[in-house]
Amino acid sequence: MSQDWIAVDWGRSRQRAWAMRGTDVRDHRQQHATTENLAGWLSDWLTSDQNLVLACGVLGPVGNAVPCKPLSEGLWSIDIGAPRIELRVIPGLRQSAPLDLMQGDETRVEGFLALNKNWDGVICLVGEETRWVHVSAGEIVSFQSFLTGAMFDALVNGRLSVHRLADVQTDRTAFAAALSDAMAKPERVMARLHEAHAARILDGLEPAEARARLLGALIGAELAAARPFWLGQQLAVVGDGELATLYVDALSEQGAPAALADESRVTLEGLKSAWRQLTG
Amino acid sequence: MSQDWIAVDWGRSRQRAWAMRGTDVRDHRQQHATTENLAGWLSDWLTSDQNLVLACGVLGPVGNAVPCKPLSEGLWSIDIGAPRIELRVIPGLRQSAPLDLMQGDETRVEGFLALNKNWDGVICLVGEETRWVHVSAGEIVSFQSFLTGAMFDALVNGRLSVHRLADVQTDRTAFAAALSDAMAKPERVMARLHEAHAARILDGLEPAEARARLLGALIGAELAAARPFWLGQQLAVVGDGELATLYVDALSEQGAPAALADESRVTLEGLKSAWRQLTG
Repeated sequence: MSQDWIAVDWGRSRQRAWAMRGTDVRDHRQQHATTENLAGWLSDWLTSDQNLVLACGVLGPVGNAVPCKPLSEGLWSIDIGAPRIELRVIPGLRQSAPLDLMQGDETRVEGFLALNKNWDGVICLVGEETRWVHVSAGEIVSFQSFLTGAMFDALVNGRLSVHRLADVQTDRTAFAAALSDAMAKPERVMARLHEAHAARILDGLEPAEARARLLGALIGAELAAARPFWLGQQLAVVGDGELATLYVDALSEQGAPAALADESRVTLEGLKSAWRQLTG
Repeated sequence: MSQDWIAVDWGRSRQRAWAMRGTDVRDHRQQHATTENLAGWLSDWLTSDQNLVLACGVLGPVGNAVPCKPLSEGLWSIDIGAPRIELRVIPGLRQSAPLDLMQGDETRVEGFLALNKNWDGVICLVGEETRWVHVSAGEIVSFQSFLTGAMFDALVNGRLSVHRLADVQTDRTAFAAALSDAMAKPERVMARLHEAHAARILDGLEPAEARARLLGALIGAELAAARPFWLGQQLAVVGDGELATLYVDALSEQGAPAALADESRVTLEGLKSAWRQLTG
């Protein structure tokens, strides 16, 4: 493998790496890793010389406060020996009011802006957390995080795991109905979640529909609270898989059309941008 | 052990049994059990004769629809052989609009009413689920379940487990502030949960205070949605430990004083009541 550097996105539940030659991808991996086995995880890419690993995510500290550019000056640096790894971590961003932080999404915003020059508006980054990021003139102005995705995962893998909803496709009609219901009465979210459970048991509700009701309740409550971020704004959703398309659908139902951007592509583009700044 | 019968409360996360002589408790146990090892779990209490086990909880079917008395006619019966166990399960209750079910709380309501004759009002049963039950003239009129407790457990044992909030005491001042905030803007619940996480990381918020913010956000959103159940009603909270006292405090802050009833006592009283009906 003749890479110059290794790009890493270190998420809480997912770790990915790309072996890079300049801005070209030579190899890619996604498998569970821990900070203790970082060298082992990357071992077949490592040379006996210096190895530059440039990472974003929950590895390092939180840096600048918004408003600021997505990429802060001053990467967090740590050198690991034999094989020698220069680990450089892109700092996360903080906000003081309301208190908030991101670690990884700053790099995705950077990547999105690299692919969409002079873009102003709101980027909704979908995943374990949902993050609404207001961007103007190349700077992150403000943002707001929601634990929606993590709550959904906790429900379908925990308390409601008996219903086996983790791997089914969401029924889109039921989702639209649950969403509109949730936006009208967002405070009823915890009751709606129990109702979906009751409907599975008492009415034999289909898994696809139960999943739709849970996601509709959670995303509907979020959209009600995030209204200042999406109302009358130019919008983009960054994510992958079904969850991202559900956000696009949900926003469209509210008369707020959003462009969909692929999360992997945007992440890698952000890491390339950081690499250019570091080496250029 | 010279018991006549065995009382069982079969909860989703907790199973308890009492060896009973008439209405006197001779022995008690609480430890994890599964339906497969029911006989093993109770083995040192079982006689070579017939053994009557009377249970409430998530073992059996859902029976009557409200409005109805807490205890339905017709226990669900299953006989298990050698040692012979006659298992009799108190059916849960259902509601058609909004769709809802309870399995176990009908027995607690029965027990509460046995201890408080001619009581009319709303009973708030606190646990993994919170259930608001409107009682009039000895009947359950309507009810509403919320997944609040299960969501809190999923958060502190899962996504936010790094903050070690499971075993700390809740800061009451911070709880009152978070509650009032949540009741004013209940739709922001998923954002508030992330804010508590951010405050732990960025501000070094104390665990007692972070726990208070999470519980305040969740219980506040619930109280906002359950308002028709507690506004201007005679109120009782059934539960144990800190969670029950937080509900009493929260209701009191809203000018809605609630009596606190011990959950174990009420459960056992309900099982005794079912036993009297079965044998009397």
